[in-house]
Amino acid sequence: MNKIYIPYSEMLSEFGRILLKFGFTDEKAEICARIFTDNSLDGVYSHGVHRFPRFVNYITKGFIDVHAEPVKKESYGALEQWDGRLGPGPLNAAFCTDRAMHLAQKYGLGCVALSNTNHWMRGGTYGWQAAKKGYAFMGWTNTIANMPPWGSKERKLGNNPLVFAVPFKEEAIVLDFAMTQYSYGKMEATQMENEKLPFPGGFNEQGELTTDPGEILKSRRALPVGYWKGAGLSLLLDIMAAMLSAGLPTHELSKKEAEYGVCQVFIVFIADKLTSFPFPPMIINKIISDFKTSAPDETKKDIRYPGERVIHTRTKNLQKGIPVDKNIWEEILNL
Amino acid sequence: MNKIYIPYSEMLSEFGRILLKFGFTDEKAEICARIFTDNSLDGVYSHGVHRFPRFVNYITKGFIDVHAEPVKKESYGALEQWDGRLGPGPLNAAFCTDRAMHLAQKYGLGCVALSNTNHWMRGGTYGWQAAKKGYAFMGWTNTIANMPPWGSKERKLGNNPLVFAVPFKEEAIVLDFAMTQYSYGKMEATQMENEKLPFPGGFNEQGELTTDPGEILKSRRALPVGYWKGAGLSLLLDIMAAMLSAGLPTHELSKKEAEYGVCQVFIVFIADKLTSFPFPPMIINKIISDFKTSAPDETKKDIRYPGERVIHTRTKNLQKGIPVDKNIWEEILNL
Repeated sequence: MNKIYIPYSEMLSEFGRILLKFGFTDEKAEICARIFTDNSLDGVYSHGVHRFPRFVNYITKGFIDVHAEPVKKESYGALEQWDGRLGPGPLNAAFCTDRAMHLAQKYGLGCVALSNTNHWMRGGTYGWQAAKKGYAFMGWTNTIANMPPWGSKERKLGNNPLVFAVPFKEEAIVLDFAMTQYSYGKMEATQMENEKLPFPGGFNEQGELTTDPGEILKSRRALPVGYWKGAGLSLLLDIMAAMLSAGLPTHELSKKEAEYGVCQVFIVFIADKLTSFPFPPMIINKIISDFKTSAPDETKKDIRYPGERVIHTRTKNLQKGIPVDKNIWEEILNL
Repeated sequence: MNKIYIPYSEMLSEFGRILLKFGFTDEKAEICARIFTDNSLDGVYSHGVHRFPRFVNYITKGFIDVHAEPVKKESYGALEQWDGRLGPGPLNAAFCTDRAMHLAQKYGLGCVALSNTNHWMRGGTYGWQAAKKGYAFMGWTNTIANMPPWGSKERKLGNNPLVFAVPFKEEAIVLDFAMTQYSYGKMEATQMENEKLPFPGGFNEQGELTTDPGEILKSRRALPVGYWKGAGLSLLLDIMAAMLSAGLPTHELSKKEAEYGVCQVFIVFIADKLTSFPFPPMIINKIISDFKTSAPDETKKDIRYPGERVIHTRTKNLQKGIPVDKNIWEEILNL
């Protein structure tokens, strides 16, 4: 990758310019541009700057309706069902996270189940959003089919990313992981560098586990995390997302010409407002203090909690600029 | 294992006899005996009949207080914190599942966070309990440390089983999985039969992945599901459980002489009562119908949804009797 480094403010204003051109209001352009820029700042380029051209492409194709606003379908108290009306995924997801925080404020926890929305880009975004305000977060999305059930060679399950987040000091602990051991993006990048995956990432066409990304890209048989366990979790996440939101499950999404109209679940708990002793920050601080004393294994790498590395990347990218593939940045400048 | 087959009713009444002897009330003895018997009927012997002697042992040691009843600590509306007061784990967990259903009935979803409780045996029990009544369920427990963080060789994380369940036809789809790829019980059984694990189950003392259960039992370095992903999930589940319940996290539990005083989370959603179209049963039926059409891989095994096998085992064990290790059954008869 021929990298160039773009300052945060330059990327933000460039995304803003383009979104305004494509019909976003000032306010929505700013929120959406900031999500794409922050994802890039945090090192999640695949769901930040490198994804931005496809996001615009989906707008021009009509898969994303820039004018749509989410609408409440049903309310059951702490649980609400919303229709995303095919609006921009990051805007819908940020809105529903806020809405779930509002419900949690009132009921202790809140859940917004969102149908008919679009790719939320980096799921961790919404974990950070809630946790930075002192809430605990749990959320997931369904996707088109990109992984076989356990015992099958046919893609029927989504990789359905799942996010957990809790407040931690001024920041957050954020776990954001998909049900495939490696993303297709990671496998493509590894293949381009002519390297092997660190652990088996799928089955080849003969049904053997392999660390060769090229073989998996050919067979399309990505490995679920924990073999049968991740395959089962993917199925349940899809069922829960479609059922709670009354939206489209993976098998229906997969019939479309592109991935749009997905379902998402946003569950938010009050955390910093829990009044029982010990208070949540005390509990979390002690868990992480103990965790950090774990004896390193033979690799002698740092023992890190989920999301810890993000802080380092964020600081570095703020100083040096955000690394972007030169061709992609030129494509963006021409949008 | 020298197996004998015990009829359901005989096992139930035997457990009931013993629990009464150890001070359970009639009602509690029946609920608790039924949970242990049903777990065994469903094939989860390790958390049913084969675990029963240890359950009684924990009573005699004072880790489990048979007279304790859970007490509400705080209520925030749809979220409640309860103190299990070291009562019998299955009774506390069944109570909290009911309580979460009650909250869901009122608020659309409900969450009970339970501190100071005991091993719930098979987590799936509570998923079945909620799903058979038309609710969706999500729950987990923390445990003592039995798995290293990613990059560590020291056990600091629990295997923290996680359960998802939804109603399906007259039964349920129930996913119940621990964060270690294999349980220590499974590894011990595999070693006793002089066999290898189907996939790597941990690291040996040299830090190499291995399928030899003996090496892992020696190193105590069980592999998290999905490598770093399951390790991260274990940490977040522990934080959420301890924080939401204001109870003891894994690192505190691990200082005790035995595993007691754990935390659990029970989240229940209305499912069959959601009024949006399409209704939940229609969505789930269609997902499973599609899932069942998945092309088998080279192993040519059936493609099964989580919990499907249970129904077969249950039917078989009802007819043939429940298989039990002869020595364990004799131990139980002498209690």
